[in-house]
Amino acid sequence: MRLSQMLFVTLREDPAEATIISHKLLLRGGYIRQIGSGIYAYLPLMWRVLKKVSQIVREEMDATGALECLLPQLQPAELWQESGRWDVYKAEGIAFTLRDRQDREAILGPTHEEVITAIARELIRSYRQLPVNLYQIQTKFRDEIRPRFGLLRGREFIMKDAYSFHSSPESLKETYDAMDRAYRNILSRCGLAFRPVQADSGAIGGSASQEFMILAETGEDEILYTEDGQYAANVEKAVSLPPDAVPSPFETFETLETPGTTTIATLCDALKCDPTQTVKNVLYGCVFDTGLVVPVLVSIRGDRDVNDVKLFNELSRRAVHYGATKVLALEVPDETKLKQWAAESIPVGYLGPDLADSCLKKQANFEAKFLRLADPTAAELTNFVTGANRPNYHSVGVNWGAKSPTISCPDVVDLQSAMAGDRAIHDATQTLETARGIEAGHIFQLGLKYSQAMQANFTDEAGQDQPLWMGCYGVGVSRIAQAAVEQAHDKNGIIWPIAIAPYHAIITVPNIKADDQMAIATDLYNALNAAGIETLLDDRPERAGVKFKDADLIGIPFRIVTGRAIADGKVEVVTRATGETQEMAIADVVPWIQGQVNQALQG
Amino acid sequence: MRLSQMLFVTLREDPAEATIISHKLLLRGGYIRQIGSGIYAYLPLMWRVLKKVSQIVREEMDATGALECLLPQLQPAELWQESGRWDVYKAEGIAFTLRDRQDREAILGPTHEEVITAIARELIRSYRQLPVNLYQIQTKFRDEIRPRFGLLRGREFIMKDAYSFHSSPESLKETYDAMDRAYRNILSRCGLAFRPVQADSGAIGGSASQEFMILAETGEDEILYTEDGQYAANVEKAVSLPPDAVPSPFETFETLETPGTTTIATLCDALKCDPTQTVKNVLYGCVFDTGLVVPVLVSIRGDRDVNDVKLFNELSRRAVHYGATKVLALEVPDETKLKQWAAESIPVGYLGPDLADSCLKKQANFEAKFLRLADPTAAELTNFVTGANRPNYHSVGVNWGAKSPTISCPDVVDLQSAMAGDRAIHDATQTLETARGIEAGHIFQLGLKYSQAMQANFTDEAGQDQPLWMGCYGVGVSRIAQAAVEQAHDKNGIIWPIAIAPYHAIITVPNIKADDQMAIATDLYNALNAAGIETLLDDRPERAGVKFKDADLIGIPFRIVTGRAIADGKVEVVTRATGETQEMAIADVVPWIQGQVNQALQG
Repeated sequence: MRLSQMLFVTLREDPAEATIISHKLLLRGGYIRQIGSGIYAYLPLMWRVLKKVSQIVREEMDATGALECLLPQLQPAELWQESGRWDVYKAEGIAFTLRDRQDREAILGPTHEEVITAIARELIRSYRQLPVNLYQIQTKFRDEIRPRFGLLRGREFIMKDAYSFHSSPESLKETYDAMDRAYRNILSRCGLAFRPVQADSGAIGGSASQEFMILAETGEDEILYTEDGQYAANVEKAVSLPPDAVPSPFETFETLETPGTTTIATLCDALKCDPTQTVKNVLYGCVFDTGLVVPVLVSIRGDRDVNDVKLFNELSRRAVHYGATKVLALEVPDETKLKQWAAESIPVGYLGPDLADSCLKKQANFEAKFLRLADPTAAELTNFVTGANRPNYHSVGVNWGAKSPTISCPDVVDLQSAMAGDRAIHDATQTLETARGIEAGHIFQLGLKYSQAMQANFTDEAGQDQPLWMGCYGVGVSRIAQAAVEQAHDKNGIIWPIAIAPYHAIITVPNIKADDQMAIATDLYNALNAAGIETLLDDRPERAGVKFKDADLIGIPFRIVTGRAIADGKVEVVTRATGETQEMAIADVVPWIQGQVNQALQG
Repeated sequence: MRLSQMLFVTLREDPAEATIISHKLLLRGGYIRQIGSGIYAYLPLMWRVLKKVSQIVREEMDATGALECLLPQLQPAELWQESGRWDVYKAEGIAFTLRDRQDREAILGPTHEEVITAIARELIRSYRQLPVNLYQIQTKFRDEIRPRFGLLRGREFIMKDAYSFHSSPESLKETYDAMDRAYRNILSRCGLAFRPVQADSGAIGGSASQEFMILAETGEDEILYTEDGQYAANVEKAVSLPPDAVPSPFETFETLETPGTTTIATLCDALKCDPTQTVKNVLYGCVFDTGLVVPVLVSIRGDRDVNDVKLFNELSRRAVHYGATKVLALEVPDETKLKQWAAESIPVGYLGPDLADSCLKKQANFEAKFLRLADPTAAELTNFVTGANRPNYHSVGVNWGAKSPTISCPDVVDLQSAMAGDRAIHDATQTLETARGIEAGHIFQLGLKYSQAMQANFTDEAGQDQPLWMGCYGVGVSRIAQAAVEQAHDKNGIIWPIAIAPYHAIITVPNIKADDQMAIATDLYNALNAAGIETLLDDRPERAGVKFKDADLIGIPFRIVTGRAIADGKVEVVTRATGETQEMAIADVVPWIQGQVNQALQG
């Protein structure tokens, strides 16, 4: 394509709307254009990148035997009510919903478990039809609270989502493993550095799940991993061996005045003790889907933090005990909220695990009894320091159970955030390292969650009706495209991996009025395109410097300059990624670039 | 692909939800599945058809130099307010709209003029960047009043839409003509019989427009055309020479009692006259976007019908006289509405062109003065019969103007529906013939409508700011797929054109337990696929009869049966379209089918 004919417009300045480099570069390079908050037009260059990513995804999916289809974006509310997700998505406003002219509610698909399960329950009758895996590549919608980072957290984005159905968990595991391999292939073929990590399953549900992180210093997600390659997890899910606690010097139970010690740091300073000798007690409000609010008191060792995702999951498991089906929200109560809860004042900053339920006010939709949970780090301590349930007082030499009968240890659950520097569980000689990444894919073993809720059954070999085993597998197509830029760029612009670059090569003509330059450029342009090397011709009436800047900005892997060397039958060939410049005989250009491109495409 | 592995499920019975054959066959063949009213899942077979249609569209667009992109489906309301279409689309409820979590309104794209014009006004600065033509292939949304006929009138459907920008109307015309050729190529390559016709531009706006009709007896649209190939138009737009009027026998003005003659038929019967000697006067209510309702009285010769689309367009042109910008609706008033309008009773069935304005009641948002319009067929008549504005009375020997001063002829405008049998305007020896079709594409010369409303300008060669000339071009991808079925099927099922069939061939194994059958079938299956012939293998444990029925139902062009003839080294090859069956040496199968397929693909 000739640049003069393709509405090629770049920006010199960083657009104010963008904060991260990949977003800035895609805007400046004329790849995308913002149309609304979190909503972008993919301009022709970007669309070429997206088509290449999609095609790699499609080929890898097809190779596993998955079947491509396309499901509707408008989904009837009834399906989401059947699965039980309507309330969560609607209440949290994650999904866009609308009413049609018949006043029926619909949801703009953020994901398609409901639709595909409704289809599966009609089409699948027998174990003979299983396993089957259906996928689609499609624009999805999420009404993000704070749309940002361009395509990374937009409100409209392109996903590949696949859904598999099975007669057994073993068959599900096989497809899950095949998807794992396919996802590794996809990211490798896209030319990206990535890491698969254990992940939390979140609102999607199910048991095992794994994320695929494209490594980038500015990534939103934190990954913890070990150098031996045996462990990698999203920090939301990661487990570790925390450092050992320092033995406590407080051998006798005693309550001490500790004024102004509402933080672990000030407390340890005042008592000259180590944070590992303390138990902090953190208060949450858990809102269930019945409207019931349950106050939750979590005890954890002073040097550790509560992992909200783990706590959310634990509370979800306990929903049934409160007559609820799910957790709608988990909040840290502010002062106003605390006043609403309290029968008597709650001494925040000085709470003990034995904070009395009597401080809570009996009221509608409120459980006036703490749900008490302890992280193992707290449960294992002896002679520890903790709040005395009076402002400005802490107790020392506290023990659980027999030794200090007033403080019985609550249910013990792993609720702590693993941290870089912790020892690994699989091998205590390995230390957790930290890296940042951009989530590009997520695969789930959903199990029976949707099939049971929506009665999607099959008849097994024994003639018995069974719910279908199900997996789901998502990859962010538009996310991969921008994450690639976040991973590889320099001060001059984007450095596309060859496999997903919008074009492989660009011929820059320094002076389009020089007939010899244009003649050689046009010949090369035709020869490169004929050889299957997707090539741009910069034939704009611009200065050479502007053209070089633009070529670097948009990140085309190979730049060919028809400069002075053409007098010697040569052109300059610049490799974008390395900056390497070589003078090359004109006849050598096509085979050399073809070799480079083929090598990249073959991975 | 092996049928045993592809969730292949067909239905024996016609689904109750479908009324037309193509909809029934697509449901029965397992191509689509209804998820909600007017909302369908495209199952794997259908998706292959849609991908093939899309690819043909893409290739033909690319060949014209158009650039592919992808625009957002969620569009901010502000853009539609700028263009002035928000009120029309929102008021009529044609478009789905929603409010996001910030309570901002958005529209789910039924079309993209606003978005692309917003992009153009940012990116296009100079005539040097022109012309440019951007297209996308995308799912679109319309909240149809009565979704029906499967994909033909769904609420979610796949379109290719293109938008071109130009520095002059001549340049626009060039691209419009290129699009005309591209659309003909698309439909030819899809293997369809079609007819390009002159069309009304409707709510999209602009001047010239042309539709591409896929011919089918059950098509929603009526086409009028002449055998000489010089004229074809949608009935909404068509013009013609109506039959000459029979000279009137009523030479004297007279008002006669004509009881019970509220129709032209009963009137002519009573007066023993010809319908061409009468003028009927039809009452409408025109609702403008200001809320004003204007009563409209249209006079037309008794044998002709008013064309609502022509009337709507005429009223739209007159909106400015009423301080409005556009017509929201055109209604035929019912009894209740007439009572609201009337100061004195309105003698429906006996109206004359001179029905007094005094019969209308002065009231808010109502123009108590008729807008009177006459079709040329009425304006040309002399000594005609028409209503006397009294129940059960008509006047005869009526003349416009001087001869009968009370009846002045209103503004004359072509408002009649052309009909089959009329003479053609271009050649009165040609008679209009009628055919039915399914609209598959529509191309428009929009002119300056959107660029002026949204201030999308460019700088011309003289350095002057000018509004951009614009065209838009739509083709219904999912529509083409279903229309192909409506055009070509028989009592046994679908007959796909080879170019868009989901697979080219199907190998039916009558008995999968016969090792020789399976061995030959598998060899052929591998050989055909290796030769690029997309082939299915029916390896299901079903009876041969079931397999034959299914193969016919889903309409695969070539069926290969590994039956008894394999003993002689032969298989049966059945051509779906003709039913022709031939025994063929196994070695000849691949080259023969390859020849057939290549011929079809080369158009």
